[in-house]
Amino acid sequence: MELTAREIDIGTRSPTVLVNSDDAAELGVHPLDRVQLAWAGGRGVGIVETTDELVPAGELGVTRRLGHVSGTVEVTVAPHPDAVHYIRKKLDGIELERDEIDRIVTDIAEDRLSDIELAAYVVATYTRGLSLAETMHLTQCMTNAGHHLSWDVPVVADKHSIGGVAGNRVTPIVVSIVAAAGVTIPKTSSRAVTSPAGTADTMEVFCDVEFSTEEIREIVAETNGCLVWGGGVNLSPVDDKIIRAEMPLSLDPHGQLIASVLSKKRSAGSTHVIVDIPYGEGAKVADLNAARELADDFVRVGDHLGMTIECAITRGEVPVGRGIGPVLEARDVLATLDGNGPEELRLKSVRLAEILLDCCGREDVDATEILRSGRALATFRDIVAAQGGDPDVTLDDLPPGRHETTVSASRDGVVTHVDNRLVSDIARRAGAPRDKRAGIDLHRRVGDEVQTGDRLFTIYAESAAKLSDAERLQRKSEAVRVRTRDEALVEHV
Amino acid sequence: MELTAREIDIGTRSPTVLVNSDDAAELGVHPLDRVQLAWAGGRGVGIVETTDELVPAGELGVTRRLGHVSGTVEVTVAPHPDAVHYIRKKLDGIELERDEIDRIVTDIAEDRLSDIELAAYVVATYTRGLSLAETMHLTQCMTNAGHHLSWDVPVVADKHSIGGVAGNRVTPIVVSIVAAAGVTIPKTSSRAVTSPAGTADTMEVFCDVEFSTEEIREIVAETNGCLVWGGGVNLSPVDDKIIRAEMPLSLDPHGQLIASVLSKKRSAGSTHVIVDIPYGEGAKVADLNAARELADDFVRVGDHLGMTIECAITRGEVPVGRGIGPVLEARDVLATLDGNGPEELRLKSVRLAEILLDCCGREDVDATEILRSGRALATFRDIVAAQGGDPDVTLDDLPPGRHETTVSASRDGVVTHVDNRLVSDIARRAGAPRDKRAGIDLHRRVGDEVQTGDRLFTIYAESAAKLSDAERLQRKSEAVRVRTRDEALVEHV
Repeated sequence: MELTAREIDIGTRSPTVLVNSDDAAELGVHPLDRVQLAWAGGRGVGIVETTDELVPAGELGVTRRLGHVSGTVEVTVAPHPDAVHYIRKKLDGIELERDEIDRIVTDIAEDRLSDIELAAYVVATYTRGLSLAETMHLTQCMTNAGHHLSWDVPVVADKHSIGGVAGNRVTPIVVSIVAAAGVTIPKTSSRAVTSPAGTADTMEVFCDVEFSTEEIREIVAETNGCLVWGGGVNLSPVDDKIIRAEMPLSLDPHGQLIASVLSKKRSAGSTHVIVDIPYGEGAKVADLNAARELADDFVRVGDHLGMTIECAITRGEVPVGRGIGPVLEARDVLATLDGNGPEELRLKSVRLAEILLDCCGREDVDATEILRSGRALATFRDIVAAQGGDPDVTLDDLPPGRHETTVSASRDGVVTHVDNRLVSDIARRAGAPRDKRAGIDLHRRVGDEVQTGDRLFTIYAESAAKLSDAERLQRKSEAVRVRTRDEALVEHV
Repeated sequence: MELTAREIDIGTRSPTVLVNSDDAAELGVHPLDRVQLAWAGGRGVGIVETTDELVPAGELGVTRRLGHVSGTVEVTVAPHPDAVHYIRKKLDGIELERDEIDRIVTDIAEDRLSDIELAAYVVATYTRGLSLAETMHLTQCMTNAGHHLSWDVPVVADKHSIGGVAGNRVTPIVVSIVAAAGVTIPKTSSRAVTSPAGTADTMEVFCDVEFSTEEIREIVAETNGCLVWGGGVNLSPVDDKIIRAEMPLSLDPHGQLIASVLSKKRSAGSTHVIVDIPYGEGAKVADLNAARELADDFVRVGDHLGMTIECAITRGEVPVGRGIGPVLEARDVLATLDGNGPEELRLKSVRLAEILLDCCGREDVDATEILRSGRALATFRDIVAAQGGDPDVTLDDLPPGRHETTVSASRDGVVTHVDNRLVSDIARRAGAPRDKRAGIDLHRRVGDEVQTGDRLFTIYAESAAKLSDAERLQRKSEAVRVRTRDEALVEHV
């Protein structure tokens, strides 16, 4: 059928074409079927949406995703991409071969799947699971689909946390210790989307984080490490597309998680990786057994890819540091590197650095000593300088937001819980991560005894309006739980 | 966050809003998250898509689905609809309660789900299955979501085929016999989308098929029956939305199928329904056991709804009538009603009518006699007249397309198979269902002996170009298989 192309202003990930319902009936296509397009100067495959109004019969609404389509277009029915057959196969519980997984990954990478098909893929891997062999193939295929970094050294260290814990800003400390020990650790991190700060947001308090591959090489050549935003490097483009379907359903299938993390690490050229797996109430992994299973599979898939993976199973119910929000976490990082800072943040960072150094064959290194001696701080300052920041930065340069309110204990008792989700939500209401100085500073830890009127935490904001917003949420929730010893054991509801 | 609304031209089923990536990060929303919108004059919930280009920071691209949104819009994060939680629950293999199914159906009916969520629902019902209780609830909830017809008689007969068989145009014959027997049978049918003709397309050869509910009442009052297009009556709007997600994946989950069919029948006010379940190679149901299971569940769910359901399990490997395409099928229907026509079409129609009349308590009626005596033909002519057609129509008024080509046997042997899919595809290439006179006329049935040069089938088209198209497909395929007796048993490939 011949139709006349008409450009339409539509934000779409996939190559949508709008077809009038009458033309669709004549072609015999449903919404989400594929059509082959041929026009003077090009060819392409579009995914059909039908309309009664937006496009009149005889015309074809074409989105920019398909390039500049103009004039007369010959439209014929095209088959579904191969990936759809394999997704269907997986839905039926049949294990996929390597080349079938490769087709799925390629079709996702090139945006050939509709949301319906993408969701079917994610749901299939969730309800049917991925075998170890499938996870290995998937990791390899996802790695192949992205850009790659390579380094001229045999050992490249890296670190990943599966996330979900507030104030868990160990990365800049771990990187500084490991780099100070002479091990290459080019760390790429994410920005926050639903949390009050990602490592990239926190590092941006000190210096730039967006660099080209070539610039990253120079920073690492100078300092052994870097702390940059990974979004600029495009290491696993497929991952972002799969996340699109996982997020709305809050699905994070085990095999898919491993493939996402390890394909990124592999693309980044990492050879030795420590994976932080926080578990417990409110964390992504509910219990110790599930954490151990996940850890085992991380190690096995890594092994298959020729990578050395070590996993640290950590307590994830409560925040690690005191600060929550970019500047407040940056203060924790700087204080810890300077010999102060929150105890748990220091202990966890040192332990992760030790495990990572050990697996890199550097059992000789004393991570505690590197931190204590100030060598980690010196390396951190070198990285900050190499990334265009002020190497002489002090806590005085990092004041939190000037609007603040402090929440106090309304009774005597013991702090029994600090809610990851709630402190994150309050910090976000206060403006984090966009308002770098916004967030929360926790004054008490779980187990601390408090008396009525003792300070529990302070909320900081850059504007009075956002502070009020955060206070409203604070008042109707209980981010820091104080109970008497009795109540802590038995809570009568 | 306050954004300025900007209308965008986009064809979408769901209430999409386009948000600049920077604003999305500040709000903390991912693609497909929900946002609450409040503007002077209205409120609504939008589903987020992010863009770097199409909408600048500070603006909000709004589709027409949300109504007329203009000026400043206050945008806040909104929770996922409840349905998403229940879909997630079903994905985890947990049986849903009635009110949870109700939420899902309502959210689908009101287009509150994104394609990702809709696909997750369909895939969940496919991989996890629906229990009989869930299927009953789903049928009831889908019934509640649509328009209803009601009739002033205690017995309202109806008929449905789950489809997939070419030339299976029994409906006009069954309706004519049943209506002639004095039983009310207000039949709504679909148009073809991927097949060469639906019952509505075939009836349109004789008369109009699009009527209002009031007009349908008048036709049925006059003739006991009707043969109209169901799309105009909106009996199960949820069904069309669910089909959107089923089609691309070729999924047709058992429980969902039952709920779709019976909710439509219930909404149409039907009390006694015969369901035709064709099975076999190439049909929707692969074998006799699967057909029996499906039939049992149809009966049970119908019983729960207070409907009497009878199922006919029929052979579905090969076409039923001779003609494929609106006019060619219309010719078969008229010839059969007139005492001629293809043997299988006549036998199947009479048998279905008998079963249906029996379950309506009309064991006294002799369906064969009603057909033989011409009473069914007279009733059919009454219905055609009531629907604005020519009651005196003859086969001479129904010539097939003037461009034709006849395919002959290239060898001596026996017809061993007629491929439903291929004859349908060839008929579509020839122009069916849009070109009413296009299609195929089969001259031989399975089991017929043929000699080289004997006519196997004729392709008809309204244009020479479409005939060539159909011939091309015909030449590279084998729609009608001729084998020697030996080969028919053992085919050496």
